Amino acid sequence: MERKLRRAALRIFRVALKAVDPVEAVLRHVKVDGDRLIVAGRRYRITSFERIFVLGAGKASAAMAQAVEKLLGRWVTGGWINVKYGHGAPLRRIHVHECGHPVPDQAGVEGAQEIARIAREAGERDLVICLISGGASALLPLPSEPVTLDEKQQTTRLLLACGATIHEINTVRKHISAIKGGQLARLAYPATLVTLLLSDVIGDDLDVIGSGPTVPDRSTFADARRILDKYELWPRIPVHVRERIEAGLRGEIPETPKPGEVEFRRAQNVIVASNRLAVDAAAREARRLGFRPLVLSTFIEGETREVARVHAAIVREIRASGHPVRPPACIISGGETTVTLRGDGLGGRNQEFVLAAAMHVAGLPAVVILSAGTDGTDGPTDAAGAIADGSTVARARQLGLDPEEFLQRNDSYHFFDKLNDLIRTGPTRTNVMDVRLMLVA
Amino acid sequence: MERKLRRAALRIFRVALKAVDPVEAVLRHVKVDGDRLIVAGRRYRITSFERIFVLGAGKASAAMAQAVEKLLGRWVTGGWINVKYGHGAPLRRIHVHECGHPVPDQAGVEGAQEIARIAREAGERDLVICLISGGASALLPLPSEPVTLDEKQQTTRLLLACGATIHEINTVRKHISAIKGGQLARLAYPATLVTLLLSDVIGDDLDVIGSGPTVPDRSTFADARRILDKYELWPRIPVHVRERIEAGLRGEIPETPKPGEVEFRRAQNVIVASNRLAVDAAAREARRLGFRPLVLSTFIEGETREVARVHAAIVREIRASGHPVRPPACIISGGETTVTLRGDGLGGRNQEFVLAAAMHVAGLPAVVILSAGTDGTDGPTDAAGAIADGSTVARARQLGLDPEEFLQRNDSYHFFDKLNDLIRTGPTRTNVMDVRLMLVA
Repeated sequence: MERKLRRAALRIFRVALKAVDPVEAVLRHVKVDGDRLIVAGRRYRITSFERIFVLGAGKASAAMAQAVEKLLGRWVTGGWINVKYGHGAPLRRIHVHECGHPVPDQAGVEGAQEIARIAREAGERDLVICLISGGASALLPLPSEPVTLDEKQQTTRLLLACGATIHEINTVRKHISAIKGGQLARLAYPATLVTLLLSDVIGDDLDVIGSGPTVPDRSTFADARRILDKYELWPRIPVHVRERIEAGLRGEIPETPKPGEVEFRRAQNVIVASNRLAVDAAAREARRLGFRPLVLSTFIEGETREVARVHAAIVREIRASGHPVRPPACIISGGETTVTLRGDGLGGRNQEFVLAAAMHVAGLPAVVILSAGTDGTDGPTDAAGAIADGSTVARARQLGLDPEEFLQRNDSYHFFDKLNDLIRTGPTRTNVMDVRLMLVA
Repeated sequence: MERKLRRAALRIFRVALKAVDPVEAVLRHVKVDGDRLIVAGRRYRITSFERIFVLGAGKASAAMAQAVEKLLGRWVTGGWINVKYGHGAPLRRIHVHECGHPVPDQAGVEGAQEIARIAREAGERDLVICLISGGASALLPLPSEPVTLDEKQQTTRLLLACGATIHEINTVRKHISAIKGGQLARLAYPATLVTLLLSDVIGDDLDVIGSGPTVPDRSTFADARRILDKYELWPRIPVHVRERIEAGLRGEIPETPKPGEVEFRRAQNVIVASNRLAVDAAAREARRLGFRPLVLSTFIEGETREVARVHAAIVREIRASGHPVRPPACIISGGETTVTLRGDGLGGRNQEFVLAAAMHVAGLPAVVILSAGTDGTDGPTDAAGAIADGSTVARARQLGLDPEEFLQRNDSYHFFDKLNDLIRTGPTRTNVMDVRLMLVA
């Protein structure tokens, strides 16, 4: 029974992965029919455009660009994509530019300048297709003059050190950038603008993915100033950052474009892949395999071992009473948890989740737990995640492994490596956070 | 809308409480029809017994005994109940004996001796009704000679300090007790024995509730020795404890009674109230009020603020996608979480749960969260729990309260006191852990 459940769990995860493959994701939302380009139901006449430019940044953007070239072929005039070093892909008409991630570098700035230049060049009769995916924030660094890249990064570091939220950090960053917070849309205007986004953030807020270069920004210079005051950082941030924000407060430089402004009249933003898409695909495949799927949440975050404990509590309830769903059941959750490192072991949030959960379902029959990252990488390991069942703890003890000890040392990788229960997918070119599956037959 | 939802949440909680009221719980499972006593479907002829004794221990046992007196009246020959100081109740034929909890005392030992004496006195033609509820472990202390109460407690303290699990501690305790681990059933044999249990433990394992005085014990003297060796405590435990266990290992004193043994032929154990019962009653009432109920789990444990974060993630998913259940929805969970104290504030696990959850659902419309202890007490406070909605954080900020700061100081009581959002029920005489409700309309 466990072997069959494991096979089902692995199959469900593979189907979830396939649903968020960047090429498939673009091809699912974008169609070409004769000279019509159809993007999530909205129709554009290709021949009405003089030129079509493809711009973008992010870890999955090269693969997304491949899909666009496949669809539009020689209609693509040209374009520019900023990707992480080593994440390039062969493209025919779009330039692929490799640069620094997660720490942005000068190559990134030069690439972002080129992207801004092309957007500015695009006119009323042109179409700009923009491809944004996880990592775009770092891969599209364009500090607004006179702020330098160093000064921008220093500001981010100061905010991070004060415990500012990601929302607060983004508000400040958007106001010292020349491209984020809708400003790429302003540069592209009056060209028609279609943005395809692959979301790697909880909640899929458009203005958070890659700091929303083509999305209206509700935050203001005044908000940025308030945040810097709140953390008492105003006197400590670099002088050019202060100058920029003061100029903005005096109305000498324009605000980021706001909802309803002219820049967005011809702009369409479409999320082509997200954690929800992966989770929904998993639910459909689970149903096809005869399980009752229950999507718990795609908003899961928090300390991994505690999150695992709650998930295990649900498994125990299903076993005991058939709540919240009767077996054969498949509980699915998404999002991304964190690990507070206590030991010197090797692992990742997904492997640690499975280890902690396995300890709480030890001894239960017909239970399988899987957790894996959709990018194929979990922490600093070569595994995407791990899989376990109710006999995993007993099997480990037979091999002389103490699960509690491995968990304490954050050493989930070596635990599952010894049990041959690691999941290895290799790089998947996508990233929509994690997928967790709990099967109870 | 929020006001209506709050009223619904409070009503659902009240109905859940009523379902686990000790008197109601006994009356629901035990009926008298003519001279028939019907216990969870099993029938006994009252007039076939010469005498009926009522024994018991626990915080709810006095109330349970009131229900038994109400049912059986003058058929009750007599009996003895050990309750916590101040937890007595007027009884006519059953003696109420107050003693120490959570630290057992000499009064407890004397009461336990009396209970053992009555059980031993009961013969083949007698019925013993045993009433066990939360706290019975401490309220029924009967160390087996020559072990003293001090020595027994010292052993427990040593095990606790080593991080032994509750299962391991119980294994050792049962083997240095003269009444736990099924030994009360042995004393009562060959009398007919009916035990009514009010469960305060996750999973409702009969042998864990009050250390299972009337329940078969699967653990052995050899297990007890192995556990003491595992934590390297064998040389450190009191000499009488060592002597007792060594005598058991040599077979000089009998093992605790095991499943299938003669002591249990005439014994019936019935859980009359449990967390599941409260949660199920909440689900029924939620449905009656027009909500789609979803029982998440009654096995919830772990660090409160992390557990709250997962619960909030489910609320956010309902709001975003209608998963795992469409609004109007009522998510219900049970069990008992823990709080790692970081600050010097005042609060309890339920109040802290609501505070942490409120922070993660801040701004969401038509969301209400409630968490409260069924015993009417949450931590060292006069509140049972608290209630919040999507506007709680904004309301707090208007009053100058920073929710993050209150959470950091574990000061949820003062936070909700200022918002007038504490739930106060007064003592409920029952304890089946906690009930959490999340309403999304």
